Amino acid sequence: MNESNKVKPKTLPGFMELLPNEQILFNKIKDTIRDSYEESGFLPLNTPIIEDAKVLLAKAGGETEKQIYRFTKGENDLALRFDLTVPLAKYVTEYYDKLSFPFRRYQIGKVYRGEKSQRGRYREFYQCDIDIIGDGKLSIINDAEIPSIIYNTFNKLGFDDFTICINNRKILNGFFKSLDLTEKSQDILRVIDKIDKIGKDKVEAELSEKVDSNNLEMIMKFLSIDGSNQEKITELENLGIKDEIFQEGLNELKQVLNYIGDFGVPEHNVKLDLTIARGLDYYTGTVYETFLNKYRNMGSVCSGGRYDNLTEYYTDRKMPGVGISIGLSRLFFQLMDNNIISADNESISKVIVISMTENYGYCAKVASTLRENGIKVQVNFEDQKLGKKFKYADNIKVEYAIIIGDDEVENNKISLKNMKTGEQQTIDIEEALKILK
Amino acid sequence: MNESNKVKPKTLPGFMELLPNEQILFNKIKDTIRDSYEESGFLPLNTPIIEDAKVLLAKAGGETEKQIYRFTKGENDLALRFDLTVPLAKYVTEYYDKLSFPFRRYQIGKVYRGEKSQRGRYREFYQCDIDIIGDGKLSIINDAEIPSIIYNTFNKLGFDDFTICINNRKILNGFFKSLDLTEKSQDILRVIDKIDKIGKDKVEAELSEKVDSNNLEMIMKFLSIDGSNQEKITELENLGIKDEIFQEGLNELKQVLNYIGDFGVPEHNVKLDLTIARGLDYYTGTVYETFLNKYRNMGSVCSGGRYDNLTEYYTDRKMPGVGISIGLSRLFFQLMDNNIISADNESISKVIVISMTENYGYCAKVASTLRENGIKVQVNFEDQKLGKKFKYADNIKVEYAIIIGDDEVENNKISLKNMKTGEQQTIDIEEALKILK
Repeated sequence: MNESNKVKPKTLPGFMELLPNEQILFNKIKDTIRDSYEESGFLPLNTPIIEDAKVLLAKAGGETEKQIYRFTKGENDLALRFDLTVPLAKYVTEYYDKLSFPFRRYQIGKVYRGEKSQRGRYREFYQCDIDIIGDGKLSIINDAEIPSIIYNTFNKLGFDDFTICINNRKILNGFFKSLDLTEKSQDILRVIDKIDKIGKDKVEAELSEKVDSNNLEMIMKFLSIDGSNQEKITELENLGIKDEIFQEGLNELKQVLNYIGDFGVPEHNVKLDLTIARGLDYYTGTVYETFLNKYRNMGSVCSGGRYDNLTEYYTDRKMPGVGISIGLSRLFFQLMDNNIISADNESISKVIVISMTENYGYCAKVASTLRENGIKVQVNFEDQKLGKKFKYADNIKVEYAIIIGDDEVENNKISLKNMKTGEQQTIDIEEALKILK
Repeated sequence: MNESNKVKPKTLPGFMELLPNEQILFNKIKDTIRDSYEESGFLPLNTPIIEDAKVLLAKAGGETEKQIYRFTKGENDLALRFDLTVPLAKYVTEYYDKLSFPFRRYQIGKVYRGEKSQRGRYREFYQCDIDIIGDGKLSIINDAEIPSIIYNTFNKLGFDDFTICINNRKILNGFFKSLDLTEKSQDILRVIDKIDKIGKDKVEAELSEKVDSNNLEMIMKFLSIDGSNQEKITELENLGIKDEIFQEGLNELKQVLNYIGDFGVPEHNVKLDLTIARGLDYYTGTVYETFLNKYRNMGSVCSGGRYDNLTEYYTDRKMPGVGISIGLSRLFFQLMDNNIISADNESISKVIVISMTENYGYCAKVASTLRENGIKVQVNFEDQKLGKKFKYADNIKVEYAIIIGDDEVENNKISLKNMKTGEQQTIDIEEALKILK
């Protein structure tokens, strides 16, 4: 075959593919998230990436449907999952009899959206979701626990300067109802949602085209509620809105804020933010967004909320839930892009065993002894010059190299070189084990 | 929406979807394999599931191509990966300049084949692969190390009674060449490959239709070579075959068997098996199959081998490699199906915190204290009867329940119940921590 006949290997645009050191770091973050989710008793799920298109798209429509990877195989109309929520709805309906409710599950996996490819936006990306699903009802106390899982997770990831913003959709809905603006509320929320990007003045200008001046004044008053979480609650109470939905939302919010501290979340990491709505029709109660304070421009790194009914397209049974999602691929890209994390020194192996001569048997015994002791060991027994082997050791970022030549074999020793300091000593394998462990 | 309007949620046939306790066990096995691969210094890769069809199918043809999930999105001709080897070939060609060779990578991920659905065969299934890729050349010593990774992996999975069968394709190729049967060799190997299923007599009968009686005698003599690995080597030497390829294969096999022990594989776990060929055109040297001795009918649980050139469809550069693969989804199904493993008592949480009254703040503090100490904690603060909460605790298989009522809150204690023995004691949280840690 000539070069001209070769296919040029190329990963598709919009698909994240990492170098090994980057992948090591990515996996560490993914494992940390998993550990944190498991620590709070969430059960793992791993649903298929391919589903029956009818099942997957029972709810979807509009923009979402256009992004779907949908295709036929034989007579089957198939689609790739575009989130982990629809598969969860399918799962709890399909296996209802075999599950215990409240059902707590996490799922960390790839989802697919054929969006227009742009920097930092992927067509295949990881979502890391947890949800708590109730059978018929679900206590509001769960809404207070969820932020503690956000807090623990980002804490374990090495962050402390972040804010979990909390709101309740019922407060927004009740507020608009009290102004007789229910029909326009989605429209208004869409404008309010932009407040972070365009500022309060532009929001007011846009809203003035949609509502009369009395209502505009009320909305702007609502948006200007400020102070500590407790002060905001007091201001909300002082608005004097009697609407039942509003009062229900306010009551839920108070409970969530009340118990959040007991779940171990420091007060300064939690902020009641009345501008957060999280999409337009999905969430029905508590909503969350999380921001790294120094990198607010990254947008929310962990979002979610409470929904009334997960499974309405599949069953009459009512299944309320509350959950959050971390868009891991995008988060990883942003953290790397902002130099908040670096994969430069990531490695799997702690030590490499390098053969200087053909004493492969002895070298193999050394490697396997280390491995039996739980040490991650790479080997290089290739027919290469020693300089090339050390270059290799440098590249894979091992801390130590063990070099074995005839002398070492004869004296039943190994030469251990610290790759950072360059220091080298010829010692027993037992001594080496003590240093490496 | 009426029930009649609902979509019936149904997972597609041929797609493995597990209950949470099964998923916990599956993940444990997957983690064990990963740990074992990392212990030997393999680097993680995570290539996309969707690739450009032209790239993915550069080599494929015939049966493979028919099974591919292939579809278009916009103007793109796409396909889902059907193994992890082709993506590896793509990867090492695409990122050649940024990798260090020999390049050791593992990848554990889902692959897709639209095979006819049958029990224990999946259309979406996990493969767990390791490969060592050389740049131009790769020492035979790697072929001796690979079985130690198979051994360590299955050992860590709790098996000891298994056999790693080893052969070398060059011995087979050289043998057939010496009989002037090179052109018929694939045909003959296909028959020999069935020896485990149909027995030696039927193999002989089938072969008699393909070769003359002299050659048949030689082949049957070859197939009857028996005894210890060393005795088989001696018999192979005694065949007096001078063919260069045969001698090369024999020499490689001797080296592999010679060093395998140094890499820590016990002699009784390794068997030279001259009937193993592993497919017809891919492998070019050492080949491996692994059998659980008590469950030989399961087929090989870990297979692989040496290949001359991984990347021939993408580049003129020669990249030899050696690797193995565990078909995890199928293995998991078989282990469950044969009752070799059981997920009955699998759980994530060690303890559940149960509220008897509305002391949610105290309950939350207890849960978060345990979590801070690394204990996996589920909570149930729902408005449910106590009996229902204990049923829930039973279902999720926690070892302990912590029950908190008014008395506990008043005395700053918790009641710790051992779910197995039923024993219950009211103690300080510190005492509980000691027991639970």
